[in-house]
Amino acid sequence: MFWLRGLIRISTSSIHKTTTINTKSYLFTSLSHFTTATSTSTSTSTSPTKPPEKYAGLGPTKSDEKPRVVVLGTGWAGCRLMKGIDTSIYDVVCVSPRNHMVFTPLLASTCVGTLEFRSVAEPIGRIQPAISREPNSYFFLAKCTSIDTNTHQVHCETVTDGVDAVDPWKFKVSYDKLVIALGSEPTTFGIHGVKEHAIFLREVYHAQEIRRKLLLNLMLSDVPGISEEEKSRLLHCVVVGGGPTGVEFSGELSDFITKDVHQRYAHVKNYIHVTLIEANEILSSFDDRLRRYASKQLTKSGVRLVRGIVKDVEPQKLILNDGSEVPYGLLVWSTGVGPSPFVKSLDLPKAKGGRIGIDEWLRVPSVQDVFAIGDCSGFLESTGKPILPALAQVAERQGKYLANHLNKIGKAGGARANSAKDMDFGEQFVYKHLGSMATIGRYKALVDLRQSKDAKGLSMAGFTSWFIWRSAYLTRVISWRNRFYVAINWLTTFVFGRDISRI
Amino acid sequence: MFWLRGLIRISTSSIHKTTTINTKSYLFTSLSHFTTATSTSTSTSTSPTKPPEKYAGLGPTKSDEKPRVVVLGTGWAGCRLMKGIDTSIYDVVCVSPRNHMVFTPLLASTCVGTLEFRSVAEPIGRIQPAISREPNSYFFLAKCTSIDTNTHQVHCETVTDGVDAVDPWKFKVSYDKLVIALGSEPTTFGIHGVKEHAIFLREVYHAQEIRRKLLLNLMLSDVPGISEEEKSRLLHCVVVGGGPTGVEFSGELSDFITKDVHQRYAHVKNYIHVTLIEANEILSSFDDRLRRYASKQLTKSGVRLVRGIVKDVEPQKLILNDGSEVPYGLLVWSTGVGPSPFVKSLDLPKAKGGRIGIDEWLRVPSVQDVFAIGDCSGFLESTGKPILPALAQVAERQGKYLANHLNKIGKAGGARANSAKDMDFGEQFVYKHLGSMATIGRYKALVDLRQSKDAKGLSMAGFTSWFIWRSAYLTRVISWRNRFYVAINWLTTFVFGRDISRI
Repeated sequence: MFWLRGLIRISTSSIHKTTTINTKSYLFTSLSHFTTATSTSTSTSTSPTKPPEKYAGLGPTKSDEKPRVVVLGTGWAGCRLMKGIDTSIYDVVCVSPRNHMVFTPLLASTCVGTLEFRSVAEPIGRIQPAISREPNSYFFLAKCTSIDTNTHQVHCETVTDGVDAVDPWKFKVSYDKLVIALGSEPTTFGIHGVKEHAIFLREVYHAQEIRRKLLLNLMLSDVPGISEEEKSRLLHCVVVGGGPTGVEFSGELSDFITKDVHQRYAHVKNYIHVTLIEANEILSSFDDRLRRYASKQLTKSGVRLVRGIVKDVEPQKLILNDGSEVPYGLLVWSTGVGPSPFVKSLDLPKAKGGRIGIDEWLRVPSVQDVFAIGDCSGFLESTGKPILPALAQVAERQGKYLANHLNKIGKAGGARANSAKDMDFGEQFVYKHLGSMATIGRYKALVDLRQSKDAKGLSMAGFTSWFIWRSAYLTRVISWRNRFYVAINWLTTFVFGRDISRI
Repeated sequence: MFWLRGLIRISTSSIHKTTTINTKSYLFTSLSHFTTATSTSTSTSTSPTKPPEKYAGLGPTKSDEKPRVVVLGTGWAGCRLMKGIDTSIYDVVCVSPRNHMVFTPLLASTCVGTLEFRSVAEPIGRIQPAISREPNSYFFLAKCTSIDTNTHQVHCETVTDGVDAVDPWKFKVSYDKLVIALGSEPTTFGIHGVKEHAIFLREVYHAQEIRRKLLLNLMLSDVPGISEEEKSRLLHCVVVGGGPTGVEFSGELSDFITKDVHQRYAHVKNYIHVTLIEANEILSSFDDRLRRYASKQLTKSGVRLVRGIVKDVEPQKLILNDGSEVPYGLLVWSTGVGPSPFVKSLDLPKAKGGRIGIDEWLRVPSVQDVFAIGDCSGFLESTGKPILPALAQVAERQGKYLANHLNKIGKAGGARANSAKDMDFGEQFVYKHLGSMATIGRYKALVDLRQSKDAKGLSMAGFTSWFIWRSAYLTRVISWRNRFYVAINWLTTFVFGRDISRI
């Protein structure tokens, strides 16, 4: 490259000797630039962790500002709430280590490339545009470290995930209304080795890790010098947990194997297997007929259904409690969720199972202006209501209810901190289950439209329900951009097959 | 979740007590499964690094097998060659740490989300389907560690990029014809700190890192408690190297800033700046008129053009050789490329600059059946030809030529090792430069159709050339799938803006 030589030449000569059309303007810019540059550089010594004020943040809202709703979390509950908040009444401040919402029902499809990762990730700025436009609305990439309900403040710390030259720093945010929507985290039942060796399926980076590992194992197993046993181990995909997530992932995986691996990895196609380990029954929340159908379909598409309890997880194999060993190359763990240590640590009333206790209006009793929604919350026994399952459906409905609720309070003049004490809170939150769905691969899905496990009601299986399932989700993907991309992904997967480039 | 409780219940009781429809089949599968499982598990103790044979691999091809072409590398040269190889004559074995080709001319667009990463990555299996179908054609995810031209063997080691429970292992591959297409790597001129703190722009993971860091900095700079100086530092994007890559990236970046940041990060839009540092002139291979045009356009779109030589790179600032300091939040390094240490270490004839020396037929003289193409090769002085620039255009043309060349030799019965000694090699490889193009953002590009730097010829700038540039690339993206995706990406970027979710 010519300019490369130029670079060497110039380095041995002095700049003013080389004269080009732009030299002047160059030098001019550079000078003006460097003055700013140097002035700036001097101050970079003051690390971000030491801001002017010792402990910065957003103070209590003044009378000439809008009241502030602080939302912790960017899951189904928090995002649905932010979407519904009337930003002419409130400023919205969202605190989360994730700047997007994950459309979890389609996450399993991204692990094998049926869908692309970005098609299931929705930036907060698109869910609630005020956050990126309004002068006093913000999204902070940070995690909440503590909540002070007396001073109406949340303490936060920035998330810099190990990027060099940026140390995390602390700050405070005062709230008029606080919505805790911190979600849940995967349960491991304290089984040794799960956190170290298994991959969960809750975040986009989980799906990315699964996809990378699956493709790596497929390629490594094709390299000469590998033993037959090692080959079968690398290509043994084990899923622990027979709930909707585990079943959906197993279905996607067997689709990927029958449609893509057989064609693109012909050399190793006979070595790859999927095993689904469940202690009880798969899809136990679905009715018997659907369960039987699911088992039949999964077995037919090559998924080995194994009943057992995992006792210990080692790097290359897991041990069941009957002592039998199951070697694996990929281990996905989806045995349900529970409240995070932070949620457990909060000094707030608690419901069974360590969730934040809420009343019929999703308020946290005994403190002012604090609400909790989604997986992290549960009805207090005093309400006489059952604790709702940790489902997107529940979180979404609670977010929607609370948004309207807060808007109503705001219109009634109760938006400021401590101003809604004696207000009538209107109708309570009532959850109506719209039925459960689960896809099992091969253009088949289960739809259970019963109100509860024991109730009577419609339930279907097969292609029709697969179609309902897909369109149901397609219309629930929040932005048109992502609806469009999901449709395009499905189309290209159908026409060209899944993408196997390991990037 | 019901089945979760089930999981706990079952763990406290014994399996045979709980009876469900599927218990029998479950137990049956589990039993049959565990027998295989245990038998497998016993042998997993034999690590993959110790295969049955001490040092496995593919031996010399037998008379009843097709002759074997071994290709090292999956860049423009190697992939174009594999695409053109007649697989009815040859088996193809590709060795590379990357299972896809990167469509480099569009890589800069992926850093800011104009295009998606997968749209510019083409899996080898789609470029040459034989590799995934033919019994004796393979892709090995590995790096070549040495070449033994006497025994016609390459020594390789698997790439497992730190995935737990898999140790890399060595293997050999015998070749009838060997094509070295190992490409080049970024030059740092031994400047301290570049490798540690700057990001190159050659691979998809580079683009991913840039995008993640850019979005992280945008979000961090909006968090309370950050000083004004730190804010401007975080949002100062510095590009070193004014070649096509550096200029294209700067253009994309300023587009991203004017179109997306101003809308989606309104709070910090006035703090973000792009500086392009070049020692000589930007786009020095283009003609003066185009250069002037480019400088004008870039400056107009807010890119600060700075002339200087980088002396040292620190985590938060770089130092120019006139002593001035330039603080940065993102540093992209694109000062050209040179041969990799491995290429330099090869005991083969060398051309100027340490490239592998080749003759007019792209052969490596003095050894049998070895060819070198792309950035890693250069004409020997004895040929009297100039060393060709490290351009995709050159690599692609050489790959095409060599594919036809090898097919011809094969048809003439010279496919086996040492069987083409005294053959007539037909016409030499002649490179005809089809002109250079570079986009500078804002739907503008430069097209320089001159044969060489000094030759006369057509050159254009502006929207027309932007259109030519885009369509030129669109038709050169290899598969229809990716052509389709690039078009869709451009469309959605145009309609919805760029995606800002940080996944």
